[in-house]
Amino acid sequence: MSDFIKQFIRDIPDFPKKGILFKDITTAIKNPDCFKAIIDELYNLFKDKKVDKIAAIESRGYIFGAPLAYKLGCGLVLMRKPGKLPAQTISESYDLEYGQAQLEIHTDAITKGENTLIIDDLLATGGTAEAACKLVKRLEGNIVATAFLIELADLNGSKKIKKYAPVISLLKY
Amino acid sequence: MSDFIKQFIRDIPDFPKKGILFKDITTAIKNPDCFKAIIDELYNLFKDKKVDKIAAIESRGYIFGAPLAYKLGCGLVLMRKPGKLPAQTISESYDLEYGQAQLEIHTDAITKGENTLIIDDLLATGGTAEAACKLVKRLEGNIVATAFLIELADLNGSKKIKKYAPVISLLKY
Repeated sequence: MSDFIKQFIRDIPDFPKKGILFKDITTAIKNPDCFKAIIDELYNLFKDKKVDKIAAIESRGYIFGAPLAYKLGCGLVLMRKPGKLPAQTISESYDLEYGQAQLEIHTDAITKGENTLIIDDLLATGGTAEAACKLVKRLEGNIVATAFLIELADLNGSKKIKKYAPVISLLKY
Repeated sequence: MSDFIKQFIRDIPDFPKKGILFKDITTAIKNPDCFKAIIDELYNLFKDKKVDKIAAIESRGYIFGAPLAYKLGCGLVLMRKPGKLPAQTISESYDLEYGQAQLEIHTDAITKGENTLIIDDLLATGGTAEAACKLVKRLEGNIVATAFLIELADLNGSKKIKKYAPVISLLKY
């Protein structure tokens, strides 16, 4: 199945800057069969895990998290950049190549003990994903797994976040 | 059905600034029954419309567009803020209260004659939605409808975009 999906991922050289080979998912999600295959594969991985909440990381995490929440019949909660969530939030900082960024979640997004699946499109160095894990832990959620469409294995993101929960990637490069 | 959904929308006073009563959808999507009701209602509205592509507006449009694309069995394409889409794009500007913003789409997102459903969470003044309509028209897509979870009727956005295609809103305020 991952071979089928991989053929729809497009390589874009030098994006967002010189020397980076960007994995473009837009060619995968615009193909109905490929999009369905991705969501069905995620569903099969997690259908028996009693997931209460999917915590999707802005914005491409929504593309996979929202259909999966629908199909699993669980709630969807958002992890967003600062200032976007309107009610009371908590925040975690993480390091970027230059400087820092922050991720926020509503304090009422997850209640104590809820089985929470964290979803994003891509696992690179794991900074964003680790911030996401910390936010769920601070709300006393139980992290079922962190799941990604793509993992860039050379960047060792999985090493950074596997202490929180199993790391699942449909495609590895 | 819209009465059922409405009870899960939370009012946040003075967000993003003084005097605005913000309609918070996070309380609707974190409830599994409400999230399912929203997607099922959209599905019932469009299941017979031979939709080829859902064009979802970043980022909350993805929350509804992605599950709907999955359920309809059509492709999902993204309309994003400038600089986020990695391949060749076209762009449309639109007016904000202060200044301008832009929306982009990949030139290969939609092919000529494809039935395209534009989705966002909220219709306010219609600036973003009109830019989205123009982008689909420039790619020679056929706009089936523009669809929103919430329409702020007093702001007359629907008047601005109804010349492109029917405007469908699940909830009006």
